[in-house]
Amino acid sequence: MSTGAAPDVVTLGETMAVFRSFGPLRMGGDLRLSVAGAESNVAVGLTRLGHRARWIGRVGDDELGTLVLRSLRAESVDTTGARRDPEAPTGLLLSEPRIADLTRIQYYRTGSAGSRLGPEDVAPALLDGARILHVSGITCALGPRPLAAVRAAVRAAHAAGMLVSLDVNHRPRLWSSTEAAAVLRPLAREADLVIASDDELALAAAPRARTVADRVRSLLSGGRTREVAVKLGGDGAELHTAEGRDHTPARRVAVRDTVGAGDAFTAGLLSGVLDGLGTRERLERANTVGAFAVGSEGDWQGLPERRELALLDREDGATLR
Amino acid sequence: MSTGAAPDVVTLGETMAVFRSFGPLRMGGDLRLSVAGAESNVAVGLTRLGHRARWIGRVGDDELGTLVLRSLRAESVDTTGARRDPEAPTGLLLSEPRIADLTRIQYYRTGSAGSRLGPEDVAPALLDGARILHVSGITCALGPRPLAAVRAAVRAAHAAGMLVSLDVNHRPRLWSSTEAAAVLRPLAREADLVIASDDELALAAAPRARTVADRVRSLLSGGRTREVAVKLGGDGAELHTAEGRDHTPARRVAVRDTVGAGDAFTAGLLSGVLDGLGTRERLERANTVGAFAVGSEGDWQGLPERRELALLDREDGATLR
Amino acid sequence: MSTGAAPDVVTLGETMAVFRSFGPLRMGGDLRLSVAGAESNVAVGLTRLGHRARWIGRVGDDELGTLVLRSLRAESVDTTGARRDPEAPTGLLLSEPRIADLTRIQYYRTGSAGSRLGPEDVAPALLDGARILHVSGITCALGPRPLAAVRAAVRAAHAAGMLVSLDVNHRPRLWSSTEAAAVLRPLAREADLVIASDDELALAAAPRARTVADRVRSLLSGGRTREVAVKLGGDGAELHTAEGRDHTPARRVAVRDTVGAGDAFTAGLLSGVLDGLGTRERLERANTVGAFAVGSEGDWQGLPERRELALLDREDGATLR
Amino acid sequence: MSTGAAPDVVTLGETMAVFRSFGPLRMGGDLRLSVAGAESNVAVGLTRLGHRARWIGRVGDDELGTLVLRSLRAESVDTTGARRDPEAPTGLLLSEPRIADLTRIQYYRTGSAGSRLGPEDVAPALLDGARILHVSGITCALGPRPLAAVRAAVRAAHAAGMLVSLDVNHRPRLWSSTEAAAVLRPLAREADLVIASDDELALAAAPRARTVADRVRSLLSGGRTREVAVKLGGDGAELHTAEGRDHTPARRVAVRDTVGAGDAFTAGLLSGVLDGLGTRERLERANTVGAFAVGSEGDWQGLPERRELALLDREDGATLR
Amino acid sequence: MSTGAAPDVVTLGETMAVFRSFGPLRMGGDLRLSVAGAESNVAVGLTRLGHRARWIGRVGDDELGTLVLRSLRAESVDTTGARRDPEAPTGLLLSEPRIADLTRIQYYRTGSAGSRLGPEDVAPALLDGARILHVSGITCALGPRPLAAVRAAVRAAHAAGMLVSLDVNHRPRLWSSTEAAAVLRPLAREADLVIASDDELALAAAPRARTVADRVRSLLSGGRTREVAVKLGGDGAELHTAEGRDHTPARRVAVRDTVGAGDAFTAGLLSGVLDGLGTRERLERANTVGAFAVGSEGDWQGLPERRELALLDREDGATLR
Amino acid sequence: MSTGAAPDVVTLGETMAVFRSFGPLRMGGDLRLSVAGAESNVAVGLTRLGHRARWIGRVGDDELGTLVLRSLRAESVDTTGARRDPEAPTGLLLSEPRIADLTRIQYYRTGSAGSRLGPEDVAPALLDGARILHVSGITCALGPRPLAAVRAAVRAAHAAGMLVSLDVNHRPRLWSSTEAAAVLRPLAREADLVIASDDELALAAAPRARTVADRVRSLLSGGRTREVAVKLGGDGAELHTAEGRDHTPARRVAVRDTVGAGDAFTAGLLSGVLDGLGTRERLERANTVGAFAVGSEGDWQGLPERRELALLDREDGATLR
Repeated sequence: MSTGAAPDVVTLGETMAVFRSFGPLRMGGDLRLSVAGAESNVAVGLTRLGHRARWIGRVGDDELGTLVLRSLRAESVDTTGARRDPEAPTGLLLSEPRIADLTRIQYYRTGSAGSRLGPEDVAPALLDGARILHVSGITCALGPRPLAAVRAAVRAAHAAGMLVSLDVNHRPRLWSSTEAAAVLRPLAREADLVIASDDELALAAAPRARTVADRVRSLLSGGRTREVAVKLGGDGAELHTAEGRDHTPARRVAVRDTVGAGDAFTAGLLSGVLDGLGTRERLERANTVGAFAVGSEGDWQGLPERRELALLDREDGATLR
Repeated sequence: MSTGAAPDVVTLGETMAVFRSFGPLRMGGDLRLSVAGAESNVAVGLTRLGHRARWIGRVGDDELGTLVLRSLRAESVDTTGARRDPEAPTGLLLSEPRIADLTRIQYYRTGSAGSRLGPEDVAPALLDGARILHVSGITCALGPRPLAAVRAAVRAAHAAGMLVSLDVNHRPRLWSSTEAAAVLRPLAREADLVIASDDELALAAAPRARTVADRVRSLLSGGRTREVAVKLGGDGAELHTAEGRDHTPARRVAVRDTVGAGDAFTAGLLSGVLDGLGTRERLERANTVGAFAVGSEGDWQGLPERRELALLDREDGATLR
Repeated sequence: MSTGAAPDVVTLGETMAVFRSFGPLRMGGDLRLSVAGAESNVAVGLTRLGHRARWIGRVGDDELGTLVLRSLRAESVDTTGARRDPEAPTGLLLSEPRIADLTRIQYYRTGSAGSRLGPEDVAPALLDGARILHVSGITCALGPRPLAAVRAAVRAAHAAGMLVSLDVNHRPRLWSSTEAAAVLRPLAREADLVIASDDELALAAAPRARTVADRVRSLLSGGRTREVAVKLGGDGAELHTAEGRDHTPARRVAVRDTVGAGDAFTAGLLSGVLDGLGTRERLERANTVGAFAVGSEGDWQGLPERRELALLDREDGATLR
Repeated sequence: MSTGAAPDVVTLGETMAVFRSFGPLRMGGDLRLSVAGAESNVAVGLTRLGHRARWIGRVGDDELGTLVLRSLRAESVDTTGARRDPEAPTGLLLSEPRIADLTRIQYYRTGSAGSRLGPEDVAPALLDGARILHVSGITCALGPRPLAAVRAAVRAAHAAGMLVSLDVNHRPRLWSSTEAAAVLRPLAREADLVIASDDELALAAAPRARTVADRVRSLLSGGRTREVAVKLGGDGAELHTAEGRDHTPARRVAVRDTVGAGDAFTAGLLSGVLDGLGTRERLERANTVGAFAVGSEGDWQGLPERRELALLDREDGATLR
Repeated sequence: MSTGAAPDVVTLGETMAVFRSFGPLRMGGDLRLSVAGAESNVAVGLTRLGHRARWIGRVGDDELGTLVLRSLRAESVDTTGARRDPEAPTGLLLSEPRIADLTRIQYYRTGSAGSRLGPEDVAPALLDGARILHVSGITCALGPRPLAAVRAAVRAAHAAGMLVSLDVNHRPRLWSSTEAAAVLRPLAREADLVIASDDELALAAAPRARTVADRVRSLLSGGRTREVAVKLGGDGAELHTAEGRDHTPARRVAVRDTVGAGDAFTAGLLSGVLDGLGTRERLERANTVGAFAVGSEGDWQGLPERRELALLDREDGATLR
Repeated sequence: MSTGAAPDVVTLGETMAVFRSFGPLRMGGDLRLSVAGAESNVAVGLTRLGHRARWIGRVGDDELGTLVLRSLRAESVDTTGARRDPEAPTGLLLSEPRIADLTRIQYYRTGSAGSRLGPEDVAPALLDGARILHVSGITCALGPRPLAAVRAAVRAAHAAGMLVSLDVNHRPRLWSSTEAAAVLRPLAREADLVIASDDELALAAAPRARTVADRVRSLLSGGRTREVAVKLGGDGAELHTAEGRDHTPARRVAVRDTVGAGDAFTAGLLSGVLDGLGTRERLERANTVGAFAVGSEGDWQGLPERRELALLDREDGATLR
């Protein structure tokens, strides 16, 4: 059922083991172990929709590294470009529901295998035949070598005529806004598609731009960027191009877990690109896939198959039988 | 505490083992096993309220069959009319919370013991002394023999001067609307009380009727039907008789699990009949019992005892101590 | 990290083992064991905020008693005044989520060690150097000896020039409103600070007072009482003094479990007193700490550290990473 | 499937809620709730084997009382003689795996509904048509009224020509050996069948008897006792009659949980009596049913159906498929 | 990390969803969902050891089918030859720990997608470049079409010069010994390697052979069979060739779950063939891999990586740190 | 119940969060979070027996650090000498049951707060009034600063006339045998009591010593060492002094979890010293406390109170009721 065919999308980054507690960590007790990474979440979102996606990254030569690879292979993500690093452990994070819907994360990723990703891991052959390269600001934040890997990938993608997608994905615990902006502004100019929340837009747009509209305009002028997707949380999302702006309100869905919603949105958007949809349809697909992430537990476990996209049109509380 | 006395209500149908997952089935992991069946859910609703109810049906001669019978006996449902079929397994279903409050069901009931129910299982003695026979469209959908069993039961009930209650309970995975209508329209004319959601009403009413009002009117004219209960989901419920219409809004209760709400509504309605309540009070009891199903996990586990009916009048978030 | 220094606050009462089920008790199955007691909940709320708190009470010389003491010591509550009673078991309660957000409690505390607390357990030395004594109506309801212990503590606190705080905390399963009022009215006159829900106010105020305003006025006149905090549930809370009234609306937080919210409110209020905050700031802290209790599972497990007080200002659904 | 027919065996006693922890109680955490009682365990053992058994006892009018009755009804135990006592709670016990296979029990049964059982609860009609009355030393230890109930039941059984079975079942936490012997010695003389471990035998036999053989002899002479079963733990069991002694070694089975093994043994023994087996076959059945209790979790949950009795002859580690 | 290279081993059969309970099914409660199938268990055993293995089979177009494919892909089993059958559900089984180490299985596989496997599913290209075809008696028992698929695979393997391995794997619930022998005797003659427990040997060997030695001899003479592995449970295993017999005692390991031990044994044996080991070393590897299955939960989850093979030489109770 | 009195024993080291899985980590799923550290395990063992123990160490200023401190305070371990390090996270470890009783550990402790312990953390005042200092080879292996802290503590203990106890506790994942020996040999000469398994003895004894007897002799000559305890696993343990050798066989107890057994042994031994027991009685207490660790889950959770020491003399499979 899987084939050795070229992937539609290639992405790279760090995927970690996730230890999610059911209550306060300070009380001890039960946790559940799975895996997550912003970029591999996008890859899973794409394979669930029937596309081919390859993930490039490093894991340790340990059981958590095996868990990462098992999980991605299970989802039909192509791991040809994944590598075991025998000299560093697989990174992990603790995810704790602190209060109400607020989640607190603590990373154990310093010195992790994933953060040792380097440009040599991005062999051009890994991009052969692919249509989209997707990168995120998180990988850039992991250190000089992962950043170099992102840059190498972008160069190779340009050389191969691929579309480059960038999700700003700011992580304050990894770097400051100032550090992020210094790296992401030039990078954004190399990306055909830039995805950001309204808060993050400033890290990619020209510093003098002060409003969302200004920032989008700055992004759409001067560089390669032809499309900017802005996530507005409860206010939905927008897709900006030179031709104008599409807006879609957030879908009403009972919230289960908001983690991963942004990655799901990105997967839907890229799926729309691959399917040749128009801007409005792309945005709606992004919105729908994001709603699945919000309405189910986990970063990617509840993402939809293509035939499930229509499920959200059912009445809430419904039973399919 | 239980006695060998004649039941107040007799019902028949298939009760299955329910494997309910806590997350996507495709991820494997934990499930919880219990039992459910539309008709036995009604029976439990009645015994919780202090009435006597008998359930007629078949289970396999296996552990899941034992689970079904244990569960019903625990709830004081009379299983004198239950039968072990050594030649077929107990049916089962998988219940998966797909997204937000949407539940997805998959049946393993083809060839099950429960679907081998036949008219010979409905010995007239099983109805002796009972006041109400309750049947549902699900049993009719299971095949010619279960349908024949329903028809035999209805005939016997008429002969014994019992009230006949029919819940349309349409299951699209078991039969099409066309098939259902062909069977249920004549059956509805044999029922004193017809219960349906507004969507389902068309399957029981005359085909030319186009509105809820028309459909109710068609049901109330020409056959035995003297009462039609229409479930309107978030809009509450109505009870129609020749004398007019009662309406009750849905009770406000934090939703836990909507499965089983319809059966709980029916149990409340029949309880009201047994207690000789007026239409408005019957409808309110139905509504209250339905709210318990909605506000607790499981098909029937949270149904109220009679003394608990007033609990819903307490402030939400309250603690009884 | 803990020191032998004098406590800021001393409280006394019964702390019990809590068996909390996940579904109906009548179905058997899984429960979780922890501990709770209105007064020790307040003590934990205070130590979480960095204050020193001592709890006086009795537990049995059994494993549940050990659990109580372990849990309090873990939270840095000073248990110097706790006592093992070899002649009675530790009390326990069953907590069952009955429907929606309604919780049902059943006590097994008759004859418990905790209810054998007596005035001899409140050695004046246990109050040495403390600034506040906090008592609640629950301890008064446990019997003549616990009531005598409360009275002895109040007398000793007055002698030592401490502030006395009283939470009315009415428990209908322990005593009637008439019994409660007979005890609490005179006691309230001995308290500098009286805390009550609007419903409970009548049990502490003069019988002829009919409105909240009248009741507050009666409390503020004639006795020692200089401050009355009134909890209004969804309508927030008020703090009344001779100078006037402050009101704060309820904080918007997704409700997880309302049990313990009142104790958390009290802890926040007393923390404000210890920190020398003004009435408005005290009330807001009480409100914020209460919101943590509401937005997390358990009576006290989710209470905030001082540095977490600002967390509630984050957007709901946020992730700290 | 159940009928209103007369029971084969009637028994009486206290059945309690069991809270079983998975680790040390002092650590808090998870527990599982079920029910157990020595006499109702025997009743379940009998119904599993296809006999009819009635249990007489009291439970509180609370959820744990409902759990007790639900559990017994589920197992087809006749609860016609069970009674709700609105003035006392259902008793409970905590069961904690302390170390290795050693289990520690703490009772909360003082003043429980079950211990309020009295002679008026044993209406002679409840014994009508039954062949065996089974009683145990535990009920005798609960207080004067339960003891009077046992005595009334024994008298009624004698009057009805029934066989009386007594399991000594000594519980040191309920009474001393001296107290027990004073009551059980005369009672044993009224029993046709006496069941005891070798340790317990002294409590039923004449005080001057010093060896197992002497004690058995003293029991078989002078009173009604015609049969004495002695449980020897790892050394198997013996059945003594005037004609001689049968011995059976313990069955080899991987130990899961030894609680309930004695009750299972008794159920097997009584089943053999009902089936008219010879002494050797009775003893083997007792031994086999006991082995099921030892090889499965819980007091009674793993007891065998009749057709399962042969399962133990399978190789350990086998899979039936 | 996976490549599109030709597999070392190809196998075919039915892989089902496994619902494993923690206690008696009749009590309801918790289960855990995973997947298993004798042939895919072997495939996982091989990929864990670093070989390439392909599994051919059908699953339904449902969530359990997705679970099967996810699980195999996770383990790097090549699912190129797996097929979704939209017209039948994925088969499932219930696995219940009945007593001690005895497990009871109930199948829901009648009419399952897996049992609809047919010769058309075994395209010769699926065997291209492989060295071993492994089949089992279970697939033969599923019906005429699966049997035809096995036969077609064996023919194609012969044509391609591959080694054919047959595990007798008798399942009494699927067919009788007589039916099995009629099919398996001729099939065994087409297999280069025959694997059976001593009990199963009679189903593959000539009917007149009466002892293990005779049966082995009959297998090694007249057909293609050059090697016979006999599993002796606690007595270890033997490997017979024309040159003689090797025997290895069972490894001492604390038993966790014996299910899957035979498949693990087979995986070890085939791994030894692929690595070119001698008979004694092959047998020892088979024995070691089998011990991992016995010493861990699940059919295949605990199977060893190559570097873990030496772990069993550690002292039991050891900690690697 | 706790007092500010001087501790009997002071120890220092790293205590980490423990994530213990129930199955293979590579499968994801459930884990349980607690804490452990060889030295704090000893401290808990001592407080359970009624002694006063202080633990010196560092944790991060994070939730896992809070968990460590909560857990120790719960056990009445004095944490006056514990310190929050705001610049490093609390260390953690993954504990995975790999096969049978073999546990696999992976550390995430590089750069942890615990490994930043330094001599400045061991203020002499922390030892004031204590009788024993206990250190272990693990702390020495964490780096130069922790080693310096151990040395500083030993010097201070000598100055204060305290007894010094050293548990060799070799951890191959932290340092090699050569590295360990270079540090531990001179350290052992500074210890009054040396504790080691027979395997570890070589790391502390003179290099030329080749047998256990020789090694013990070398330890007892030339330095401060007056007592050597040798743990022999299944063969029990020995206690050597200048006067001779005591030996005790291992206690028979069903094995639940061997982790922590050595620390429990040490706690028992030191308890015997504090109580002034003779060598034989000290060794037996050590052996008994070790058996509790082996017979219960977790590193320290099942350690005995003083009154429980006799429990192991009960028959296995017994129930205390």
